[in-house]
Amino acid sequence: MHWSRWGDPAQESPLSESAFGLVDAFIGTSETPAVDPASVRLSPVLGGALLEELAGIVGAEHVLTDHDTRLHRTRGKSTPDLLTLRAGDGSDSPDAVVRPGSHEEVAALIAWAVERYVALVPFGGGTSVVGGLVARREGYAGVVSLDLIRFDRLLAVDLDSMTATLEPGLRGPQAEALLAEHGLTLGHFPQSFEYASIGGFAVTRSSGQSSAGYGRFDALVVGLRVATPQGELVLGNSPANAAGPDLREVVMGSEGVFGVVTAVTVRVRRVPVVTVYETWRWETFADGAAAMRTLAQSGVLPTVLRLSDEAETSINLAKPAEVGGESSGGCLMVTGYEGTQAAVDARRAACTALLAGLGGTALGEDAGWSSGRFRGPYLRDSLLDVGVLVETLETVTFWSRLHQVYDAVRAVLTESLGEGTLVLCHISHVYETGASLYFTVATRQAADPVAQWLAAKAVASDALIGNGASITHHHAVGQDHKPWLAREIGPVGVRMLRALKAELDPTGVLNPGVLIP
Amino acid sequence: MHWSRWGDPAQESPLSESAFGLVDAFIGTSETPAVDPASVRLSPVLGGALLEELAGIVGAEHVLTDHDTRLHRTRGKSTPDLLTLRAGDGSDSPDAVVRPGSHEEVAALIAWAVERYVALVPFGGGTSVVGGLVARREGYAGVVSLDLIRFDRLLAVDLDSMTATLEPGLRGPQAEALLAEHGLTLGHFPQSFEYASIGGFAVTRSSGQSSAGYGRFDALVVGLRVATPQGELVLGNSPANAAGPDLREVVMGSEGVFGVVTAVTVRVRRVPVVTVYETWRWETFADGAAAMRTLAQSGVLPTVLRLSDEAETSINLAKPAEVGGESSGGCLMVTGYEGTQAAVDARRAACTALLAGLGGTALGEDAGWSSGRFRGPYLRDSLLDVGVLVETLETVTFWSRLHQVYDAVRAVLTESLGEGTLVLCHISHVYETGASLYFTVATRQAADPVAQWLAAKAVASDALIGNGASITHHHAVGQDHKPWLAREIGPVGVRMLRALKAELDPTGVLNPGVLIP
Repeated sequence: MHWSRWGDPAQESPLSESAFGLVDAFIGTSETPAVDPASVRLSPVLGGALLEELAGIVGAEHVLTDHDTRLHRTRGKSTPDLLTLRAGDGSDSPDAVVRPGSHEEVAALIAWAVERYVALVPFGGGTSVVGGLVARREGYAGVVSLDLIRFDRLLAVDLDSMTATLEPGLRGPQAEALLAEHGLTLGHFPQSFEYASIGGFAVTRSSGQSSAGYGRFDALVVGLRVATPQGELVLGNSPANAAGPDLREVVMGSEGVFGVVTAVTVRVRRVPVVTVYETWRWETFADGAAAMRTLAQSGVLPTVLRLSDEAETSINLAKPAEVGGESSGGCLMVTGYEGTQAAVDARRAACTALLAGLGGTALGEDAGWSSGRFRGPYLRDSLLDVGVLVETLETVTFWSRLHQVYDAVRAVLTESLGEGTLVLCHISHVYETGASLYFTVATRQAADPVAQWLAAKAVASDALIGNGASITHHHAVGQDHKPWLAREIGPVGVRMLRALKAELDPTGVLNPGVLIP
Repeated sequence: MHWSRWGDPAQESPLSESAFGLVDAFIGTSETPAVDPASVRLSPVLGGALLEELAGIVGAEHVLTDHDTRLHRTRGKSTPDLLTLRAGDGSDSPDAVVRPGSHEEVAALIAWAVERYVALVPFGGGTSVVGGLVARREGYAGVVSLDLIRFDRLLAVDLDSMTATLEPGLRGPQAEALLAEHGLTLGHFPQSFEYASIGGFAVTRSSGQSSAGYGRFDALVVGLRVATPQGELVLGNSPANAAGPDLREVVMGSEGVFGVVTAVTVRVRRVPVVTVYETWRWETFADGAAAMRTLAQSGVLPTVLRLSDEAETSINLAKPAEVGGESSGGCLMVTGYEGTQAAVDARRAACTALLAGLGGTALGEDAGWSSGRFRGPYLRDSLLDVGVLVETLETVTFWSRLHQVYDAVRAVLTESLGEGTLVLCHISHVYETGASLYFTVATRQAADPVAQWLAAKAVASDALIGNGASITHHHAVGQDHKPWLAREIGPVGVRMLRALKAELDPTGVLNPGVLIP
């Protein structure tokens, strides 16, 4: 990935004329280029004696300290991350990067880190947007990025049980390609899919565009192998059981602070024969949301289900390639169906009948949404280039609180960032009892855009917790959400996390400063 | 409930002539009556000063020490529990029974127990079959049963979100009656339904006959309120989120050792309009199991799905009222459909097409299964009366290991208990990736039937863990499964549980000896 932008530099997409015009008129633009990557100030390289010890564990060729390698493993991909790097501040870089090749090497690296009091930051795809890669460095002998890129194998396929065991460093497309050789798919397609890793999906409780059909990633995981400072933890002999607390649910969401996941066993499905996307129009966001609730509570769900609010629909954000182009008006809903022809036909007919009966207007099939799906993050970079601050935040709550949370977040964001701020929203993950809300915010950058955003994010986070919603539906906690996690789970919940941390990683070398309030 | 038998004494059912004949021929019978309840030896009553302190917290009328009240809260309903009580040994009785009426009173009782070093045993329905009510008493100033019977309210209904908040002392039928006033159902019907409690369902990860349609109880829970020695823990602002480890999944399965659950928020559904049960015949257990796997992996499941193996089918155990009567031969499958007429029609048509295509023989509608459903445990008592040892054990694993586990458990049970032992099995809970196995065992009682069963249970448990299955699908851990839980989650998993226990209940007064290896 690009050091201070999303994705593949070859795929960058400057703003279209229509999008630029829209932004210029509503927000205003000004050139704000990034510094030269060679000039970014990184942390000092780890001391030579420690590097030699690392080489003894993983081999010298897998211990890297060059500027470019370290720069590319510095911070994640939140807007504050990008703005910090664009301004030339790489002080949160790792002091070295190691690439272990086996569970045993990970275990040896952990033992070494405990012995030398070096902070270890597990690194998968580097796509965190919550500060999950920004470890606390004070007091440590150094910070080492534990890059899992060599964990790239499909270890086992069980066609009877429809499970597969994957290594954590596999990126989304790599995992799908390996599974496709067996006619299988994971069906997990978050917007970060092209770069994010299997291990990252598990330890952040990722959720993808097809969650209605395939389930959240944590619902796909049936087994985990973890290297901890106290030894190996292997969980998962069954889909579900009553053998006490489900410790898989403690590893999931743990963001590397209890141990490093070295294998993940997941539920898989057959590669779909048919894939159809359709769009619908609803008069209001409330109408569309009520229809989604009816679908979820009827047990009749498409594979993909997404609803833009009026604001997001008006600028066509659901289709990044067409932003600023003609919109449907009202609120745009995307429905997608995947599976065998018979399964798609049955599900589509049932959903269509329900949606039409609830007052939706069918706009027909639409392949454009899917193909433009992974372009969104590139758009953010183009906006950052012209002085526009763009960032997202997301939450989840019960249906009965959804509109209250929606109103509260919009109000405080607008108040914090001022008039002329665009606040767009969509629902992309539904449950019988509730749904997610995903906000995209665009405004003119202030003199200190990081401080500007953190202030807005803080009041939005207060509004989430204050209105009984979660601080995060699928972005995880990292450094950024810690204060609100503490409010979400309360003092007893915080004690539970701290007790687990103290037991599993008593010296505190695993991703220090992340997750645990 | 009866002090040493299942359920309501008025509902006892002596063996039918055909059942008695069957048992007498295959196993042999002899009268083995229980002692007089008044003669059962209980533990000493808690000291007067402590009783006065308890009365100060909950009121004197809610502190009970009479023989009958204590006897009825002694042990649970496993066969070893019943045999121990039938022989007159009530030494595991509580020294007093308290009935708090509010979260605050529970919190005050916990603080008192910590101060006085008294063991507290949360008591819901008293239906544990794994020693969950047999606390360790050595070293404690006493053992008090914390009876949640006054926690019997429906606290809130949210029709938008389709959730309800229930108090933990509600028995299954009480909860269903309260929900039915709103047109709702929980859909959770384990065999213990008539007596077991909402709190118990949550902390043991219960699973009911309709799990294919409604889900396991832990999948129904979205929120929990817990009184712990460190204060109140309130979890659940959303169906699912990415805010770190899911601490609800730590409370669920915790069997009261971390805190006492005082409210449970659950997903609810509309009361079904239509309920249909059908039966099918399969040539072999493997054929029927393969069909269940196909259903689960196609996403086309009935509400109820249950398959008896050849042995269970031959004695008709799926229909307790008809045991020993004519059987279908082969392997009997029960399918049930609940919901609106349209939903039932669609689901039934899809399942029927799949099952017929896979070689099943439809035997038609059958209401008998459902009505006889809760008679099974009464049958056990009638068999214990005539010197037959009857007990059950259950597990869950992935589909690819199911038959290996099935064969291994049958082999070691037969070897341990000798020729003439009946080992029956059914599958009653299916997942995309695996299924449960539920064994019923009947043999002639030895001189020490408790020791006889514990020896058989130990080798069966070894076989479960040795073949990669879980020690329990829905009975939980209690005292009885602890050694095998330690093997199932390994030393690091055990450290996690111990760390949580040490943090939340450092003096160890909550259900000591249960769950934590």
